[in-house]
Amino acid sequence: MSFLSDTTAPAHPALLDAMVRANEGAQASYGSDSVSARVKAQLKEIFSTDLELVLTVSGTASNALALSVLAPGDTAILCHDEAHIHRDERGAPEFFTGGAKLIALHGDHARLTPATLEAALAEWPSDFVHTTPPSVLSLSNLTESGTAYDVAAVKALAGLAKARGMRVHMDGARFANALSSLKCDPADITWRAGVDVLSLGATKGGALAAEAVILFPSVMDRFAALQARQKRAGHMLPKMRFVAAQFEAWLENGRWLELAGHANAMAAKLAEGLSAVPGAKLLHPVEGNEVFIDLPQEAADALNAVNAGFYPWPHGGYRFVTSWQTKAEDVARVVKAARG
Amino acid sequence: MSFLSDTTAPAHPALLDAMVRANEGAQASYGSDSVSARVKAQLKEIFSTDLELVLTVSGTASNALALSVLAPGDTAILCHDEAHIHRDERGAPEFFTGGAKLIALHGDHARLTPATLEAALAEWPSDFVHTTPPSVLSLSNLTESGTAYDVAAVKALAGLAKARGMRVHMDGARFANALSSLKCDPADITWRAGVDVLSLGATKGGALAAEAVILFPSVMDRFAALQARQKRAGHMLPKMRFVAAQFEAWLENGRWLELAGHANAMAAKLAEGLSAVPGAKLLHPVEGNEVFIDLPQEAADALNAVNAGFYPWPHGGYRFVTSWQTKAEDVARVVKAARG
Amino acid sequence: MSFLSDTTAPAHPALLDAMVRANEGAQASYGSDSVSARVKAQLKEIFSTDLELVLTVSGTASNALALSVLAPGDTAILCHDEAHIHRDERGAPEFFTGGAKLIALHGDHARLTPATLEAALAEWPSDFVHTTPPSVLSLSNLTESGTAYDVAAVKALAGLAKARGMRVHMDGARFANALSSLKCDPADITWRAGVDVLSLGATKGGALAAEAVILFPSVMDRFAALQARQKRAGHMLPKMRFVAAQFEAWLENGRWLELAGHANAMAAKLAEGLSAVPGAKLLHPVEGNEVFIDLPQEAADALNAVNAGFYPWPHGGYRFVTSWQTKAEDVARVVKAARG
Amino acid sequence: MSFLSDTTAPAHPALLDAMVRANEGAQASYGSDSVSARVKAQLKEIFSTDLELVLTVSGTASNALALSVLAPGDTAILCHDEAHIHRDERGAPEFFTGGAKLIALHGDHARLTPATLEAALAEWPSDFVHTTPPSVLSLSNLTESGTAYDVAAVKALAGLAKARGMRVHMDGARFANALSSLKCDPADITWRAGVDVLSLGATKGGALAAEAVILFPSVMDRFAALQARQKRAGHMLPKMRFVAAQFEAWLENGRWLELAGHANAMAAKLAEGLSAVPGAKLLHPVEGNEVFIDLPQEAADALNAVNAGFYPWPHGGYRFVTSWQTKAEDVARVVKAARG
Repeated sequence: MSFLSDTTAPAHPALLDAMVRANEGAQASYGSDSVSARVKAQLKEIFSTDLELVLTVSGTASNALALSVLAPGDTAILCHDEAHIHRDERGAPEFFTGGAKLIALHGDHARLTPATLEAALAEWPSDFVHTTPPSVLSLSNLTESGTAYDVAAVKALAGLAKARGMRVHMDGARFANALSSLKCDPADITWRAGVDVLSLGATKGGALAAEAVILFPSVMDRFAALQARQKRAGHMLPKMRFVAAQFEAWLENGRWLELAGHANAMAAKLAEGLSAVPGAKLLHPVEGNEVFIDLPQEAADALNAVNAGFYPWPHGGYRFVTSWQTKAEDVARVVKAARG
Repeated sequence: MSFLSDTTAPAHPALLDAMVRANEGAQASYGSDSVSARVKAQLKEIFSTDLELVLTVSGTASNALALSVLAPGDTAILCHDEAHIHRDERGAPEFFTGGAKLIALHGDHARLTPATLEAALAEWPSDFVHTTPPSVLSLSNLTESGTAYDVAAVKALAGLAKARGMRVHMDGARFANALSSLKCDPADITWRAGVDVLSLGATKGGALAAEAVILFPSVMDRFAALQARQKRAGHMLPKMRFVAAQFEAWLENGRWLELAGHANAMAAKLAEGLSAVPGAKLLHPVEGNEVFIDLPQEAADALNAVNAGFYPWPHGGYRFVTSWQTKAEDVARVVKAARG
Repeated sequence: MSFLSDTTAPAHPALLDAMVRANEGAQASYGSDSVSARVKAQLKEIFSTDLELVLTVSGTASNALALSVLAPGDTAILCHDEAHIHRDERGAPEFFTGGAKLIALHGDHARLTPATLEAALAEWPSDFVHTTPPSVLSLSNLTESGTAYDVAAVKALAGLAKARGMRVHMDGARFANALSSLKCDPADITWRAGVDVLSLGATKGGALAAEAVILFPSVMDRFAALQARQKRAGHMLPKMRFVAAQFEAWLENGRWLELAGHANAMAAKLAEGLSAVPGAKLLHPVEGNEVFIDLPQEAADALNAVNAGFYPWPHGGYRFVTSWQTKAEDVARVVKAARG
Repeated sequence: MSFLSDTTAPAHPALLDAMVRANEGAQASYGSDSVSARVKAQLKEIFSTDLELVLTVSGTASNALALSVLAPGDTAILCHDEAHIHRDERGAPEFFTGGAKLIALHGDHARLTPATLEAALAEWPSDFVHTTPPSVLSLSNLTESGTAYDVAAVKALAGLAKARGMRVHMDGARFANALSSLKCDPADITWRAGVDVLSLGATKGGALAAEAVILFPSVMDRFAALQARQKRAGHMLPKMRFVAAQFEAWLENGRWLELAGHANAMAAKLAEGLSAVPGAKLLHPVEGNEVFIDLPQEAADALNAVNAGFYPWPHGGYRFVTSWQTKAEDVARVVKAARG
């Protein structure tokens, strides 16, 4: 039992099986294999559009590669102050872009509002040589607080960015959880809403190490640049078929949404249970597989006593993350302990 | 049947099994797992020394990370003109180091000689602010021509570099093949000969995607910097246990050397057989799992006719690469066809 | 008459004379000339300490070079949100450091407080590999709002930074104005208060193009690195004697403080005069040669009518900058017009 | 008397006079001044074309800025092995481009031949993601050996580069000397021959510190990028009028060619005189203001005895550089001493 992170969970067995199956005979290297081609076909169907993609093995790599083809080094990336790209990637975006500036904006529940974005755009002009001009808006969906941007919210923010000639990146490390929670079409919340590039993560959703950088048609002309940067960053794996195999199994027959739906359901149950503890207080709406909650000390102690596995969070309260393999009985056990 | 590259080969089943076994329960993320700890212990025993390491998923990443903690951006890396870091990594060393200059030196069979190195050191001073000073010597072992540096050669070259205060990196993408061919102790040809950092590759030797950057005691103080750069480059995988599991299975009970020995033996057989073709001429000594050979057109055509799978090489002739799973009967079939 | 900026002013004739005098015979290139040596001696006396320095031709270059020897690319620089390095240098610090992150903090009148700095340090740990650790605190003195940090304020902020192992940079583009206003000893407000590196600007103070990066004893070991970066950035001028000559003339016999004192006095007079306009409101204390003031529309129109030359400021109000050659009668004329 | 370098010479008095004249009243900052506008008009006339330019204060800055708008970081710059950008700029091109690779080619007298260039282009393909593709050819004119490329040579080399979609840069630190020696039209040897960007140096030709990066029409669309990089590199001087004033005076009434012609004439005389020393041997044709010559030890000693001021050169022999202010009597004195 662990609610530390969805990255501490094992991989889903179907994905490992797929890797074993992919281990047959010789295959072209560096992403030219047949499995990679099938993943591309799957994604085109899922997103109802032509697209280009490269596969990587970490969300940090996906985000940094995505941003590197959107943001020249002397421009700025606007994001939420809690964004993973700003807080948790040791400056990978700065490294991959050659020094682009991350301008961190505030907003409740790790979400940006159009008003905040407009104010930032007013402060950072596009045509003054002394000032770093914004070139990219990056949105995390799910956000770092486990909340989701819905289609209307993405459209509104992306619209403001587009009006300034900027590009829009979505960090979708938990995109499946957002989709499953919002029950919207993948196309509607991405390219149809103005998203140019999506970092689509499978690792937190059940893969061993599988992430994708997806270029939608508006920026497909940057595919050669993306491949060059993937190679230059050491992320073009010789035996790419094994990453592709994970993706194929994860996407097939809606497994990705099913696993995310399970994780979300467990989070909802956990949130409901813990909220009922006297003195507990949810800190953010639970719109995915993360629960941020303030708990009385005795409840926290009781959870530690049963080795629940969770983190105290820097700004106060605690974070619990569920995953594809979180068991309902573990949730029940934890809730019982907290209420104890 | 394919002699295109050892990266087109499948992974060894024992390594996949190990990944499946590693997929049990929760594990700490980012390399703090128990499998990673066991790999470190294995390597300490194999190299008879304390050491630090990070695991990665590509040789390009390993080399670039290794160089990034040795070569400041305003210094130079000396290497052979055929070196993978110079020719085949899309400038990854330049990217990771922040612009270090690769100074490419010549030498028969992709090997540097002390005389060449001395001349280069004379040309590039260390203390003239206008000139980029050399900080690192990088040696590939196996070289890009399938030849090996023996212990004495490494010592001689490393000695010259050390006398100038430089550090020594070894690109060991096919280190197991070199070891198996030279029949020397891993410690003798690395840290005892003056090597500070080794990029140790398992991917070409039977892994799915598993490489290590090993810091020997002389540079273990750079471990924190190495980890920071690993993270910053998107190479600190959340579920690192799956890379570690490959390494553990590859190293255990001498499997790595056994697989390399098989590949080397197949290359020797192939070289012997093809050399006997009238008009054929070996271009480099075969000291590992690669055969570079000039063949008459008819022989080449005959090989293509049986789908042997091999590359014409830029500077003339053809390259054949054997791997852990190359079959003796395939070698025999190819030789027979060429002689046909 | 112009209050647009101290960079629109001409150079002081004594500095041009010094350049003409320096134009005698051959001199060693790249800073090894005798004039440069004399400037170093002057600065050692002024700052009562040993020191190292390089000369540059722009404040942006000085700041970026200074930061580049203090902040590794995977670390962060803490500064005020209004800091020139953050707002007005097109990402030069990010470029020169190889991607260091500027973390912008808030504070009234462009000054940071210890409380704000402490909160930021709590948020950005030093030892978590995923997070960019702060390595430098950069303070502008004068600040971007024309206010000054006094000795106690610098000590308090630098002390917090030092306790975290950070280095302290002072952007002194208008350092002479700050000194003249604070009437403190140059040593007391720099190295004795914890400042490691000072960007000392003469350009706004009467030079054509002359700035210095001064390394105090705590970081003098970085002098070779600083020179290498100066060269690498194209800032090691062949005929450096002409920059040095400006500095020598600027510093000699206290001319730098005299010129700054005049500019400050003009600003004080201007502030006093404009404040008396009904409806006017000073936005920041006037502690140097800049006046930020909110004016009624009619007053602003009247000033424009006499071609006063001043900028409306992004956050509201207007900015007036005085310089070494601002004339008392121009100030009087402007005040009269505004009151008109 | 000094033949060490044209950078040890003083500035021409007319240029200092021009700076003094430019020091009148307020002027717009950062290159928007009226003097800069006049320099642009002069250059358009001299080069018989529309163009864009920025002014800088060092040749290293000019070269690096020029290359930074032509060569993306994951591409290569082809140049001669002796090129200043490769040997004498501490990696500035790598720094400004974000890690572009300099591929150094050989050629007698520091000149490249079409055959060498063709071989390099064959070795470095444009469309293989693993390999760094060449994007720029950089030619020095004068070369580092004091020789010149004539119009036909530039055309031939640029033509090969253009056929591969590459851009062509000319390092013209001593462009005036080349022009004066070749007696050709400035347009013919630059944009009409395929040169996209010229680094035009005035410093060696009599300025204090004045260089220009000139974008010809083929790349004028990169002007905004060039300005952004100029600012980001700290090379956008606040009081740019003083650099412009030097340029204006240097260019007006053909002074630049007159001064270069004098330096060339002095070099020719010196070469003639020293060549007559028994045992002396010119190492390169003298096509500008540099003489590379092998001298008997006694002659070298005799020159040192009269404090001639010259450098022994790394690859053997000695280098003498003349300048606008080299006196015929000094040349005579030196020749006499060597013959003595």
